[in-house]
Amino acid sequence: MGDPERRERPRLVVFDAFGTLFDPSATTRGLERAFPGRGAALSARWRDLQLQLTWQRALMGAYRDFDAVTADALGAALAEAGLPLPAAEAERLAASLYADLPPYDDAVDALNSLSSLGLALAILSNGTPGQLARLAATAGLPKRMALLSADAVRTYKPDPRVYALVEERQGIPPARTLFVSSNAWDVAGAGHFGFSCVWLNRTGAPFLGAGRPPAVRASALGELVRRLGEQESAGG
Amino acid sequence: MGDPERRERPRLVVFDAFGTLFDPSATTRGLERAFPGRGAALSARWRDLQLQLTWQRALMGAYRDFDAVTADALGAALAEAGLPLPAAEAERLAASLYADLPPYDDAVDALNSLSSLGLALAILSNGTPGQLARLAATAGLPKRMALLSADAVRTYKPDPRVYALVEERQGIPPARTLFVSSNAWDVAGAGHFGFSCVWLNRTGAPFLGAGRPPAVRASALGELVRRLGEQESAGG
Repeated sequence: MGDPERRERPRLVVFDAFGTLFDPSATTRGLERAFPGRGAALSARWRDLQLQLTWQRALMGAYRDFDAVTADALGAALAEAGLPLPAAEAERLAASLYADLPPYDDAVDALNSLSSLGLALAILSNGTPGQLARLAATAGLPKRMALLSADAVRTYKPDPRVYALVEERQGIPPARTLFVSSNAWDVAGAGHFGFSCVWLNRTGAPFLGAGRPPAVRASALGELVRRLGEQESAGG
Repeated sequence: MGDPERRERPRLVVFDAFGTLFDPSATTRGLERAFPGRGAALSARWRDLQLQLTWQRALMGAYRDFDAVTADALGAALAEAGLPLPAAEAERLAASLYADLPPYDDAVDALNSLSSLGLALAILSNGTPGQLARLAATAGLPKRMALLSADAVRTYKPDPRVYALVEERQGIPPARTLFVSSNAWDVAGAGHFGFSCVWLNRTGAPFLGAGRPPAVRASALGELVRRLGEQESAGG
């Protein structure tokens, strides 16, 4: 990991939710129960289609909220796999599988550590406010963590209007904000917007987002916490 | 196929290029030569990543032209497959494989038939003007066919600004324009914009685009030509 503070020391650390703090691939188990032998492939394709629908809907100006898009994407993934479900059933299944999406093993500890360093924390996610509130409460995320949803501007990341919510709501400028995401396309969008970014690359995957990967990467949230902790002691 | 003329008889028929008139999977052969045993998978993934980068770049406001995005996507597909190439080589390979992308077997005949029915024809594509001109000339498409590139507005389909180019350039309103695409996301965007649409579904795939599929579908371009021919005789 390089230096996450190329401009000024961050006051606010903003996290993406899905893929960064919460694990969408955890839907594999429920899908495997419903469709034996197909769980992992369906989970991965569902996630792909979910993202693609967010980009397409945002770009064409036809917003539906993330709960709806998530259900549509599950329906599409199942139809493509030759396992069509009525829309209402796909919606119920999607909602139930996303309702208890677990945090990654390192997420809660990392957020508590950052909070105790005195850093302000936020989530900026495509997820609906209700979904984010439920996930944060179930996982036991720090209570002071702000939950910002793209739903407020009825579009999706990487639309700059979503990233602009951070300063609008938290009053902290991009130059003092560190944005952390595992999603290459999200890191690309946030960097283009003006945040300093950390690409959390847990799997050692190549960077598939637009442009170059950010200089600052981490393979685990613990690594990010240690680094920010060192900066705080050095600077404080 | 249903009735492609739900409002008024079309005066202009607009075609998407890649996947609709020209076959991106034809890159398989060249990729197979360069990477034996990997051609088909690389071609499919390259196309996926190419589209994803167009949506992401359009949404984040970081336009690069389609030649560049196509090269970036090939580089990403190769990196992901553990076959990294220097950027300049990926660019050369992408350009050479897209330079002679063949039309589908039914494309040239269909366009000539529609032209002889007196319908105005256009292509509306993400492709650069140079690329479209080269492909149209090589394939022998009707010379009067207008070639409209998203590059004029520096964004990508399904951004409505791209679809708006048709009326701006051709002077024919959406209500008199029939839009034909094999790409579900493109059909969704064009329909949301206001065109009557035909989804050209050659493979019998499920509709993976936003919203419902259009009422009007065809499994081959010949079917579309016959139908429009019948309408012209009935109406004329």
